Amino acid sequence: PIAEQMLAGREQEAEAHLQQALDAAAGQPVRGEVYLVGAGPGDPDLLTFRALRLMQKADVVLYDNLVSEGVMALVRRDAERIYVGKRRSHHTLPQQEINSLLVKLAQEGKRVLRIKGGDPFIFGRGGEEIATLAGQGIPFQVVPGISAANGVASYAGIPLTHRDYAQAVTFVAGHLKDGSVDLDWPALVRPGQTVVIYMGLEGLPEICRQLIAHGLPAHHPIAVVQQGTTASQRVLSGTLQDLPAAVAAAGFRAPQIAIHKVAGKVTHDGAGRVAGASLSEPETLTVVRPPAIKYAVLAVGTLPPEERGHFGCAVVVVATSAPALAPARDVLETSLR
Amino acid sequence: PIAEQMLAGREQEAEAHLQQALDAAAGQPVRGEVYLVGAGPGDPDLLTFRALRLMQKADVVLYDNLVSEGVMALVRRDAERIYVGKRRSHHTLPQQEINSLLVKLAQEGKRVLRIKGGDPFIFGRGGEEIATLAGQGIPFQVVPGISAANGVASYAGIPLTHRDYAQAVTFVAGHLKDGSVDLDWPALVRPGQTVVIYMGLEGLPEICRQLIAHGLPAHHPIAVVQQGTTASQRVLSGTLQDLPAAVAAAGFRAPQIAIHKVAGKVTHDGAGRVAGASLSEPETLTVVRPPAIKYAVLAVGTLPPEERGHFGCAVVVVATSAPALAPARDVLETSLR
Repeated sequence: PIAEQMLAGREQEAEAHLQQALDAAAGQPVRGEVYLVGAGPGDPDLLTFRALRLMQKADVVLYDNLVSEGVMALVRRDAERIYVGKRRSHHTLPQQEINSLLVKLAQEGKRVLRIKGGDPFIFGRGGEEIATLAGQGIPFQVVPGISAANGVASYAGIPLTHRDYAQAVTFVAGHLKDGSVDLDWPALVRPGQTVVIYMGLEGLPEICRQLIAHGLPAHHPIAVVQQGTTASQRVLSGTLQDLPAAVAAAGFRAPQIAIHKVAGKVTHDGAGRVAGASLSEPETLTVVRPPAIKYAVLAVGTLPPEERGHFGCAVVVVATSAPALAPARDVLETSLR
Repeated sequence: PIAEQMLAGREQEAEAHLQQALDAAAGQPVRGEVYLVGAGPGDPDLLTFRALRLMQKADVVLYDNLVSEGVMALVRRDAERIYVGKRRSHHTLPQQEINSLLVKLAQEGKRVLRIKGGDPFIFGRGGEEIATLAGQGIPFQVVPGISAANGVASYAGIPLTHRDYAQAVTFVAGHLKDGSVDLDWPALVRPGQTVVIYMGLEGLPEICRQLIAHGLPAHHPIAVVQQGTTASQRVLSGTLQDLPAAVAAAGFRAPQIAIHKVAGKVTHDGAGRVAGASLSEPETLTVVRPPAIKYAVLAVGTLPPEERGHFGCAVVVVATSAPALAPARDVLETSLR
């Protein structure tokens, strides 16, 4: 009606109406929302349609090193990007601050995308984020993603369940902490299951030692996948006894973000999880520190692509039987693009 | 050059060239391939880009009742569709015949899409299919899908791992067989893990009884999700002691394909897996039986949509703590579309 009034030459009337409309809108609370989206294990081709739609809709994006560059390239071009990668030594505090940042941005009326590698509810700390959002009454959506275990299994040809060999599959996180890995070993050596160990590359020798100590035979099959689902994917399979040495000889490393040119020193916390650049030389970084956010918020978007390093996920698969791993060895060439 | 020769009026020359080209092509072996693709838990929005691309490329599609109609609608329009849904009583034989059919179609030079609900390597028998394909030297690709556990967790707001409560997650299949469920109960009652039971709805009372008998407290939290990720998703949460009665009272059923008008009788094998129509009145069905395929291959594509019934997945989530389930109860409305 306002446009019609203008076109009809009734300008004063139109102006009064416009002012009314503006006043009404100002009275309404601005209501933002949060999209907690799984970006899958690395290959952008494994994004879901739902993930992409929300990525295109967001005003601001919180991401970390586990989200591949190919995925980030699909985020709405003019969205604000905030890097919230964690450093290992400050693991607990930052998560609370990421939670607070999500709340703050949504309360400003923004559509906030929290994008995560893999699936937000599998070792993604999504539970903590939605608990905070729910507590503050902020609307949110959770979009599942292909978890590293699923992506790597398919791209490496290793079935996670098998009618004859594995009636169950277990995912655990194998962080190395003070030289040891704290896992429920008696549960992991039970028969008839495949065990996928996220972040297990650094602790591989200790993991293999413990599995044997708790009753698995030394010739039990195991595989390690590095940079899973990416073009640089590498798979090594063997036995609990011989794989750690083979992996070391092959120079397997957890994916890590190679921004050493700016960041000086790079740290990482084992397979699958990248701890981000050490900020020992923060003055060389493009660092954005919003008030109350004490950890470094690093605008990786400003780095040239060749300095952004390698992504992808790494997992260790403890199979129940050699036959279950056989397809991986025999047909890897066929199953890869 | 052939088209140019025709346009230039040199018809004889063009014909000779065409014959040469045809002869050359006839000498080359026809080389088909198989795409083993996960279609996710029900919502077509959870398809990956890679899945869609292969769905659009395939000449022939093998599918079953676990693939939702919304997903099937995105398959290449002129692709041949072969329904290979299993009946419960003939569980073992059909899989071998599906394997053989995949080989046969690929050897005919076709691009064969084997589309599966969820993820092909999580209770999808994908391992058996690729073993057959690899054995026959047929090229294949495996595309991971969002597994029922991941999809349902996100859409119901139940984190599968949680820093404070669950450092591991286990997926098992909870078929009811002769009134009992054959699971590794001592493994499932170990602390610090979330357990997701696929196909566990029918056996729910027995599952809860066994978990208590093996040491979980009667008030241990548990949730049941029906038709997960679809618009008809329903979630019930409670304790091991009270949930079976609540689920029965709420009339939860496993998703089932309602083609009763044509098929007469419908059978299903518990949550998450639909056994397909009983073929007690096969004469009323549009049944296609390729040679050497003894189980019914049913052209569901010919049924009107209202007779194709309900899809989606159902899972049982045994959580480690009430707090881990709290978001599901409190914020379900918010987290759903």
